[in-house]
Amino acid sequence: VNFADRLERAVAAVGTPALVGLDPHETLLPDEFAVARRADAPRAERAAAAADFCCALLDVVAGRVAAVKPQSAFFERFGADGAQAWERVLVRAHALGLLVIGDVKRGDIGSSASAYAQGLLGPEDPRLACDAITLNPLLGSDSIEPFAGVARAHGRGLFVLVRTSNPDSAMFQEHGTPPLSDVIARAVDRWGTDDVGRSGLSSVGAVVGATHPTELARLRALMPRAVLLLPGYGAQGAGAADVVPGFLDGRRGALVNSSRGISFAYRDARWRGRGWRDAAAAALDLMIEELERALAARPR
Amino acid sequence: VNFADRLERAVAAVGTPALVGLDPHETLLPDEFAVARRADAPRAERAAAAADFCCALLDVVAGRVAAVKPQSAFFERFGADGAQAWERVLVRAHALGLLVIGDVKRGDIGSSASAYAQGLLGPEDPRLACDAITLNPLLGSDSIEPFAGVARAHGRGLFVLVRTSNPDSAMFQEHGTPPLSDVIARAVDRWGTDDVGRSGLSSVGAVVGATHPTELARLRALMPRAVLLLPGYGAQGAGAADVVPGFLDGRRGALVNSSRGISFAYRDARWRGRGWRDAAAAALDLMIEELERALAARPR
Repeated sequence: VNFADRLERAVAAVGTPALVGLDPHETLLPDEFAVARRADAPRAERAAAAADFCCALLDVVAGRVAAVKPQSAFFERFGADGAQAWERVLVRAHALGLLVIGDVKRGDIGSSASAYAQGLLGPEDPRLACDAITLNPLLGSDSIEPFAGVARAHGRGLFVLVRTSNPDSAMFQEHGTPPLSDVIARAVDRWGTDDVGRSGLSSVGAVVGATHPTELARLRALMPRAVLLLPGYGAQGAGAADVVPGFLDGRRGALVNSSRGISFAYRDARWRGRGWRDAAAAALDLMIEELERALAARPR
Repeated sequence: VNFADRLERAVAAVGTPALVGLDPHETLLPDEFAVARRADAPRAERAAAAADFCCALLDVVAGRVAAVKPQSAFFERFGADGAQAWERVLVRAHALGLLVIGDVKRGDIGSSASAYAQGLLGPEDPRLACDAITLNPLLGSDSIEPFAGVARAHGRGLFVLVRTSNPDSAMFQEHGTPPLSDVIARAVDRWGTDDVGRSGLSSVGAVVGATHPTELARLRALMPRAVLLLPGYGAQGAGAADVVPGFLDGRRGALVNSSRGISFAYRDARWRGRGWRDAAAAALDLMIEELERALAARPR
């Protein structure tokens, strides 16, 4: 089944385009997982604590969001033990019925791209597969096509970086006339042509930071069939109104990610005094409500 | 010790700027490692075969080149078992006195970039560290700085993608006026300012495909202090004369990579009939000789 169709169905089932990022940053983990930051502890124990936290968070968000987005860096930080932790989180997420968007930002060519795609999207054990991954397109079409081929064969999706949410993102992404991000956006639309599902959306999507609302509207217009993954909500400063230009009609065509705004809500003054699970649940409730209100209020 | 200084010393010791890529592509491995391509074999055995091949190749090239460049994709293809295989190859390479340039092409921001840097360049067990890694700069300065900080603290290096060797690389990398690759090159020079060693070279280097000789000369001029990693030699079509514009005086300032031209030389008609080790050794001899001749012949 086409990934964009699967995703649209999953979003409709939960009724929200909210996406929860899993960033088990060792220094921010609740105290019960403190072994993750103990430099003198065995690496395997540290990685296991990061996975335990993610699995516990999955229990909090399961059934309430369609998908989660684990950030590979926080697992790779623990080397081969982190890779095992990553796989444990994927198995658990799938068991809970959550789609997994692996935030890996890979980008390579030829047989290297195929090998990454095989490992991430098409492994022999499907419980270890991501439903979609993020990709960096700097190397051009021949760095995307091998991923698209494997994704298509396995009903998986891709989210190509078009305009990221960080302060220095304009440095190269807005270079030239038209800006590079427009050129990448047009390429994303072309790359996705053969992967449009019944929903009219393509399995080749794009990452566009919600921190740039004007550009978001422009890029949405250049990629009318792409599912947009919108980072930057919450901790990075974008509000619910900022993400609205990324959507098609209704709640369609975009996912809004919040990572530490949910995971580490217990550190936020608004939820002080609650346990970390309650704080995460409350922050997710608020995010879902804010998105719903902003999407309902927009002009038709 | 500054990475650029360490690298220069290591290159001087072996007398060649040749770099051997470790791409254990399962379908190309010699028959004695055929379990790697058996879809029905346990993943751990397949990954172990890929590592066995790389370790055997390390024995062939040790003492003859300064560094090796494992390609992460072919390890990640086997998930957590591949991550263990990667670590085994790193331990073996260090034990043989080889520098390791991890071809990982990572690129992310903030705490994610720091986590990648920690895992790859600054792990608690230094035998599991890369001496340098490749980075994708599309996200801008704030995606490079966290890596530069960790690299500096541990005497490691970075090779930033400026102009890649693949056919579609111009699509985005040559976008705009001046071309994006020039803008990235100027940024690489700036990023490397605080990491210039006694050699006058910086630990922040660049990847520039040897398949674009004219651009190579232009980019070399924009990055006078960067060590250049030049892929594309051999299998991708660049010859020894094509890499010369990447060098400073003598053999300084550049590394020339060959991956499957060495690893899988046994598949090449020139070395037919030899065992894979002999073929790899002969192909490496020829590469070293061709580079030496081309560097000696250039105008002063």
